[in-house]
Amino acid sequence: MKLSLIGLLAAALPSAFALWPIPRTLTQGTSNTEASVVGITVEGKSSAIVASAVSRYQQIIACESFVAPADYKRGIVNTTGSLSGLTVCIQGSDETLDLDTDESYTLDVPVNGAATLTANTPYGAVRGLETFSQLVTANGYGKAILNTPVHIEDAPVYPHRGLSFDTSRNFYPVDAIFRILDAMSYNKMNAFHWHVVDAHSWPIESKSIPGLHQNGAYSAGMTYYYGDVQRIIQYAKERGIRVIPEFDVPGHTYIVSLTKPEIMSCPNKKNWDHFAAEPPSGQLNIAKPEAVDFTKTIIAEYTKLFPDQVFHLGGDEVNRNCWTEDPDVQAYLAAHPGEDVESLLVNYYTKVHDYLATTGKTAYSWEETLFHSKYVPDNSTILQVWIDQASVQKALALGYRVVSSSADSYYLDCGHGAWLPNFDGNSWCDPFKSWMHVYNYDVAANVTDPAQKKLILGTEVALWSEQTDEHVIDARLWPRAAAMAETAWSGKSDATGHVRTTGEVASRLHEQRFRMVGRGINAEPMQPLWCARNPGGCDLPPS
Amino acid sequence: MKLSLIGLLAAALPSAFALWPIPRTLTQGTSNTEASVVGITVEGKSSAIVASAVSRYQQIIACESFVAPADYKRGIVNTTGSLSGLTVCIQGSDETLDLDTDESYTLDVPVNGAATLTANTPYGAVRGLETFSQLVTANGYGKAILNTPVHIEDAPVYPHRGLSFDTSRNFYPVDAIFRILDAMSYNKMNAFHWHVVDAHSWPIESKSIPGLHQNGAYSAGMTYYYGDVQRIIQYAKERGIRVIPEFDVPGHTYIVSLTKPEIMSCPNKKNWDHFAAEPPSGQLNIAKPEAVDFTKTIIAEYTKLFPDQVFHLGGDEVNRNCWTEDPDVQAYLAAHPGEDVESLLVNYYTKVHDYLATTGKTAYSWEETLFHSKYVPDNSTILQVWIDQASVQKALALGYRVVSSSADSYYLDCGHGAWLPNFDGNSWCDPFKSWMHVYNYDVAANVTDPAQKKLILGTEVALWSEQTDEHVIDARLWPRAAAMAETAWSGKSDATGHVRTTGEVASRLHEQRFRMVGRGINAEPMQPLWCARNPGGCDLPPS
Repeated sequence: MKLSLIGLLAAALPSAFALWPIPRTLTQGTSNTEASVVGITVEGKSSAIVASAVSRYQQIIACESFVAPADYKRGIVNTTGSLSGLTVCIQGSDETLDLDTDESYTLDVPVNGAATLTANTPYGAVRGLETFSQLVTANGYGKAILNTPVHIEDAPVYPHRGLSFDTSRNFYPVDAIFRILDAMSYNKMNAFHWHVVDAHSWPIESKSIPGLHQNGAYSAGMTYYYGDVQRIIQYAKERGIRVIPEFDVPGHTYIVSLTKPEIMSCPNKKNWDHFAAEPPSGQLNIAKPEAVDFTKTIIAEYTKLFPDQVFHLGGDEVNRNCWTEDPDVQAYLAAHPGEDVESLLVNYYTKVHDYLATTGKTAYSWEETLFHSKYVPDNSTILQVWIDQASVQKALALGYRVVSSSADSYYLDCGHGAWLPNFDGNSWCDPFKSWMHVYNYDVAANVTDPAQKKLILGTEVALWSEQTDEHVIDARLWPRAAAMAETAWSGKSDATGHVRTTGEVASRLHEQRFRMVGRGINAEPMQPLWCARNPGGCDLPPS
Repeated sequence: MKLSLIGLLAAALPSAFALWPIPRTLTQGTSNTEASVVGITVEGKSSAIVASAVSRYQQIIACESFVAPADYKRGIVNTTGSLSGLTVCIQGSDETLDLDTDESYTLDVPVNGAATLTANTPYGAVRGLETFSQLVTANGYGKAILNTPVHIEDAPVYPHRGLSFDTSRNFYPVDAIFRILDAMSYNKMNAFHWHVVDAHSWPIESKSIPGLHQNGAYSAGMTYYYGDVQRIIQYAKERGIRVIPEFDVPGHTYIVSLTKPEIMSCPNKKNWDHFAAEPPSGQLNIAKPEAVDFTKTIIAEYTKLFPDQVFHLGGDEVNRNCWTEDPDVQAYLAAHPGEDVESLLVNYYTKVHDYLATTGKTAYSWEETLFHSKYVPDNSTILQVWIDQASVQKALALGYRVVSSSADSYYLDCGHGAWLPNFDGNSWCDPFKSWMHVYNYDVAANVTDPAQKKLILGTEVALWSEQTDEHVIDARLWPRAAAMAETAWSGKSDATGHVRTTGEVASRLHEQRFRMVGRGINAEPMQPLWCARNPGGCDLPPS
């Protein structure tokens, strides 16, 4: 009798459900299992990725002492069994990390004895270890897993769950990027889209054109040297995160003009707003074959440095004025009747994309490459859309694979005021994207054709760094990026087809936010602590 | 010839002007003075406040190695003299800190020899030491003061330059408050308006009604005990900052109901939006004499704990529904014909304000105490307005002294999305208040009568903590609070009457932001570093 009463009490506690992102299927019992010392062992096939993850999570589980805010009044829970350890078994030790990587896993926590985590790949094990770590809760001076036995079968809905991250407007030290990668792994995100260069700085070492970083990085100390990049790639891989570099061309390239002025149009014009989306203006001069050569050199160098199968070529926010008013371009067009800026741009994209294809990489491009030019990328190209949901539908209808970074929902820098000092106005993408707004976005909205749905690779929140640097990055990203992460991993709806609401998931996200804080990520509070402790107490009443 | 050439070059450098807030008068020369080791000595009258400040700034000057972002290409500047030290002289050692405190100072830095800082009070010396610390810039491995000789005569335009800070929605450890006070002193702010309690928690120890903090603080660890409060007051005083406590009554008091349910109306109603501006609802029951008694007890206790001459009684956002639908209130009114909720409120305010007067303190109140009730506070009451500029004018016209915390310009929490988890909407006070928007506010706008202008005590930015806690507070406050600080210290216009524009001051604020970061305050970046380094380069071109 006593045991079942405890079971009933335990069943009322939300903790075992407080996983973020929520697993696709989860069943739980009514017992509680003591878990103060949990040794993780790997049986069978080995993998350096798994070994690294085991080491990390061993430490997290040993050091973390976490109670969900809503459980703040919980006393010590009686346990009826004890966890002897966690056994990790992987079916294959292939460490390839790409869009086809199987991240599924199965996790069993019995009332008594050893828990088991099985996965087809090392990366599935990484995901399962995160889930396991979230199950362990403080219980007085000890720890426990509640509501055992627990059985979880889990796999992501979308293979691409990313963050688009800008290190050009402001610089981030390697340690800050490590912290971002840590937090991404806590939320089962797997794609670090590194928008490494832009108009403001070229913070990455170039061995082929050293002037690029020598003149273009903010300083020698604010440069990602090859060794730094390799450390970041390795750190990410150990967390199941791909690093996809973006070298944005032909726009957003002012900084190149410090080293290669001869291939530039409209660099740093005073009336920049006529030539670019933001200062300083500058685009590669597409009338010059040397601009194509330059781009090929960049592609050649960085496709070697970055092992990922996908390579982002930018292509966003190209401004025609920059070229039509460029004397060089005008002279070229005068000498070549029948050509125009549009044909020059098609020629540029064709040569650049064709060259990328020779490296064996898959092209990734902002949507304008297709929609705002006459160039038609190969169908293997992945399109990153950001302008509106209609772009998603158009791109899918044309057979392209799509990642959405809807500015209206996923641009985490928005709503922070304009950043031109003599302009007292709002940001162009106002308002601020709250976590509820992020969570409510559905990349598959209005997409009904199952074949088209399959072309949706996933989503990326984006952080443009005009008003962000290492000192404030945590709060800009978290927990809002986590809100996207759940919708991309768990999907918008549960197994019954019910679309999850922000009111329903708030309590779990609170818990994930406090967990991240405990792990050293300065994520924003979502509400007064009183609200976190009183789920539903700060909901808007039905009208 | 060589020396005067250096002088000319030095004159072109912006550094000596890069003080924040900008002094009222500043003259500079064309020499540079070596200042690698600067001993600060106090001559004549002594003061513990000055001794503490000297110790702080001695360390800051010794450890800080600062170059303004716009000067990043500056080489080593030749110096033609050497600073032998800084002598601080105060005319009086009275450490009283109130609205009448004289914060003026005069600072002289010669080309060669000892600098002199003179002030009428210890607090003037504190302000001058901050200015002096901002003059010292890194010069290679050494340090220098540029553009000497420098002569500064400085004093604030407004005697009240504050931050309204909420520790109830979320808790801040004492160290976080120390960091805020540090940053306030870097910007010559002098009023920490501590909105210590509110509906969500009662984080301050009460000796007279211990249940208030025992039941109402988020935890024992999240409680400001008497010793903590005294440490905060002392820490603030050493930085020339008054600590003005607010005990907000009769609204915003739900948390009292955990200890004194018998004096409450509408505590934590499900349809809170009918009863309060935000959840949880709850107001003191003004039909009960015990509610007045409770308030007097609070006033009696905390007017003793907080030495400041001013005591804030709240009075904002009172909701009539909470009382008109309260059975107790209804019963009282049925038994007392001729009375109504308005007369009850007048009676409550009268008794509470009259009692405060017996303690010798000056009342400080949100504007609704006057404008949204029939109570007419004594003319000695300071009104804090927040709703609109018309309130400023109305209050002045009625002869009240005014501090403005215009929600439209100074509410630093705004523009961050709503925080009700089931509501995907904007914050009520959208949009975000950019530093430019903060800077552009003028508390004296549309006030023409000189007598009325004299009643303007100053301004306070406000930080309501629904979505802020210790992990993110630095970036929420800085550099935006610094933008207000300059307008309150230096005024809106320079000596010629020219109203300073955000475009003009951006470069100095950049410098102050980077200085704060160097001093351990995680202030937000205002722009890409490229823009900070290229003043004007990211301005909006004239249309």
